[in-house]
Amino acid sequence: MDILFLGTSAGTPTKTRNVTGLALIEEVGRAWYLIDCGEATQHQLLHTSLSLHDLQAIFITHVHGDHCYGLPGLLASAGMLGRKEPLPIIAPAGIEHWIMATQQMSQLYLPFELIFVAVESLTYWDTPRWRVDTIPLSHRVPSFAYRFNESQPEPSLDSEKLIREHIPRGPLWGQLRKGIDVIHDGRTLRSSDYLLFRNAPRCLVIGGDNDRPGLLSNACQGAQVLIHEATYTQEIAAKAGKDVGHSTAADVASFAQATGLPNLVLTHFSPRYQTATNQGLSLEDLRNEAAACYEGHLFLAEDFSRLRLSKTGQLTSLA
Amino acid sequence: MDILFLGTSAGTPTKTRNVTGLALIEEVGRAWYLIDCGEATQHQLLHTSLSLHDLQAIFITHVHGDHCYGLPGLLASAGMLGRKEPLPIIAPAGIEHWIMATQQMSQLYLPFELIFVAVESLTYWDTPRWRVDTIPLSHRVPSFAYRFNESQPEPSLDSEKLIREHIPRGPLWGQLRKGIDVIHDGRTLRSSDYLLFRNAPRCLVIGGDNDRPGLLSNACQGAQVLIHEATYTQEIAAKAGKDVGHSTAADVASFAQATGLPNLVLTHFSPRYQTATNQGLSLEDLRNEAAACYEGHLFLAEDFSRLRLSKTGQLTSLA
Repeated sequence: MDILFLGTSAGTPTKTRNVTGLALIEEVGRAWYLIDCGEATQHQLLHTSLSLHDLQAIFITHVHGDHCYGLPGLLASAGMLGRKEPLPIIAPAGIEHWIMATQQMSQLYLPFELIFVAVESLTYWDTPRWRVDTIPLSHRVPSFAYRFNESQPEPSLDSEKLIREHIPRGPLWGQLRKGIDVIHDGRTLRSSDYLLFRNAPRCLVIGGDNDRPGLLSNACQGAQVLIHEATYTQEIAAKAGKDVGHSTAADVASFAQATGLPNLVLTHFSPRYQTATNQGLSLEDLRNEAAACYEGHLFLAEDFSRLRLSKTGQLTSLA
Repeated sequence: MDILFLGTSAGTPTKTRNVTGLALIEEVGRAWYLIDCGEATQHQLLHTSLSLHDLQAIFITHVHGDHCYGLPGLLASAGMLGRKEPLPIIAPAGIEHWIMATQQMSQLYLPFELIFVAVESLTYWDTPRWRVDTIPLSHRVPSFAYRFNESQPEPSLDSEKLIREHIPRGPLWGQLRKGIDVIHDGRTLRSSDYLLFRNAPRCLVIGGDNDRPGLLSNACQGAQVLIHEATYTQEIAAKAGKDVGHSTAADVASFAQATGLPNLVLTHFSPRYQTATNQGLSLEDLRNEAAACYEGHLFLAEDFSRLRLSKTGQLTSLA
């Protein structure tokens, strides 16, 4: 499973960071999922190999514009590209009414069905390879995290055993890996005898805007990755005053440390943090604040950052 | 007056062309106007020197998403940047309801007032320097052109006369140019005696989507510039079938030729026309088709093309 960031800025876009959007990409085939859809998410997709034909479902964390204003344009473009497959949209209930109002206003006819699922009344959503749980968070509006749990970890081939038994590499191995029994030298080889289910199910937790990371305590048990907003450093959050509804880098990192999370990915940075560090606030301020509280693998997302969660649960940066 | 294209693609964005948006920029001060606001118009603005604080009004030609889906995000960002000035939005009536529904759904509070003006019942809109007329067009939904007419052409200083009368260059000239009478060598110089109103009022016509350019016949009398969609060549329009609601390059160019328009700017190109001409359809096909019908100055817009309409009514390309 790959994690591809399409937008990592909070509230407004910058020249180098779009507002929130994240693609989860299956390792086999072309299927992918979209989590949040800020304005111009479809524009970001033009710079990837992802197709709107292969989009399996959209998950929206909350109704703020920087997480959903890209939906109408993305749906319209999917329609103009000729998508026919129904598209589930798991989102706060208000999104359904808004999309319908948008379609009516702009006379947008879609050649595919939208299947709206209100996240408020959903406990989990099943995909062929993942069960997606929902977890309520704390923000100025109802906000949710999505926990992707691998339903059936993919087995690996017991290549040592195959070699030991002199079964030649090639198509035979491929079929055994796919669960297909084969005949070799007159005897039937049962796929299940050559598959190893040694990997724990993968699990990643993707938060929406949230000022109480502790709400994810249970959800993060056994998770390999938490992707969470870190809008501010503590200093700036204090200046911004109460009720910002967001977490600081320190908040999230301390939570991840206490929970024993092996990998923490921070995103959704206030535009005041710049990549260039010559003057003003820098993303390094966020990194340093988090690193001071957390001993696991820490990643700060950038637009088009691509991370790979391997079958064995290791997270590595590809780009 | 400068014309800055923020998006020149029809229907969907491409890697190099955004959906429709166009800025008209006053030559004095920082004031500007936005005509249409496709998704990610605010993103395009980040690559210009234009500020949402200086935006005087937004004009929307019609309700299709590629002309208005960028409004919510642009308004939200203007709010987050602290805009206080009221903002007039001249648009089809459905836009007002949709923006209100969007604000309600996403709990978007704006610190400035939106002044909605339904284009259907408007004959003209006045700005300090331009009177903007509306002209109904022909499209699948009600669509409008906006004709910007200079209310009071800016005078030029009669520098020959000033030199002849030995009035020294500098602050005195500047005040006379601004319409201020000054005292020099004990005598009062009246500004009006030194100003020349020799330029005809400038006029530019900006069309929305439209399959009958002839509807702009009256509006284009005396206009220096027509900016009009040319979504297809004739060949592709014929393949697309009836009721596309759009003009071909030949349609618009023939109209401009018949009307004697000195400058024609084509925009809103189908994404199937590419800049690279190695294979498939090319923008040069559109240019060639138009050039075969039109003898005036022909421009094909690109994103961030900037054209200047001088005080004397000449149109030149700046970028």
